[in-house]
Amino acid sequence: VRAGEIAEEYPVVGVDHPALEAVGLMSSRRLPGLVVTEADGRPKAVLAASQVVQYIVPDYIQRDPSLAGVLGEKAADKIAQRLRTAKVGDLLPEHPQELPVLQVDDTVLELAAVMARLRSPLCAVVDQGRIVGVVTASHLLELICAPLT
Amino acid sequence: VRAGEIAEEYPVVGVDHPALEAVGLMSSRRLPGLVVTEADGRPKAVLAASQVVQYIVPDYIQRDPSLAGVLGEKAADKIAQRLRTAKVGDLLPEHPQELPVLQVDDTVLELAAVMARLRSPLCAVVDQGRIVGVVTASHLLELICAPLT
Repeated sequence: VRAGEIAEEYPVVGVDHPALEAVGLMSSRRLPGLVVTEADGRPKAVLAASQVVQYIVPDYIQRDPSLAGVLGEKAADKIAQRLRTAKVGDLLPEHPQELPVLQVDDTVLELAAVMARLRSPLCAVVDQGRIVGVVTASHLLELICAPLT
Repeated sequence: VRAGEIAEEYPVVGVDHPALEAVGLMSSRRLPGLVVTEADGRPKAVLAASQVVQYIVPDYIQRDPSLAGVLGEKAADKIAQRLRTAKVGDLLPEHPQELPVLQVDDTVLELAAVMARLRSPLCAVVDQGRIVGVVTASHLLELICAPLT
């Protein structure tokens, strides 16, 4: 089985995409993350849902979560406002998680090896530099474990 | 809004649970991870799908994924065999990701703060030490961003 045969359609957003729209896509489909590309379409990074949460919550509250209890409900609405003017590239941490990129004719074992090494929840599958789909870790496990059950 | 109001049903497995069954649960529902509890039911850790992939792929292949291309298809079937005899506790890395645990009456902002600090894709919500549900990062984003759209 080759990577190209198991890759699935998955939301891909560019670094210049509005952050709020990208987060809406992620949350409405309850995805653990999105694939982020450079402006020219080359795969760049994984944006995990947990990284967006980190972006929204101010540093001083992350350092002392007990402050959050004091701030009340309105503060929660307010902090999300940061997303309104942000772009996807702004949400990426300074050292974003490296996105594993596989070729369509790589084997499933090669795909597993690269995902394991990079500890990534997903990888992009490309054909001549263009993303044709994504394989998530849980999808990969389904394929690997199916013969065992 | 309190954590207890937004917590959702989510698979929870004990450290002594058969690994293959737990992985089947994770992959059939395409979950990014499972909540793992101690034998007595106390929340212990998050088991991410990517950590299971790491467990399955032998270290020497992780170090040099090009070997995977040489090994062929049968090797992929073989490595998954490790799951047959394993328990969930075996799949956890030596230093597993800390599971954020919130109380039912904690606020959504407190929940966001703790998830952000621990960079976790999910958190457990407990009532008197018993897990009543889970909140994923993407679910949290849905709640926080809904008023903005």
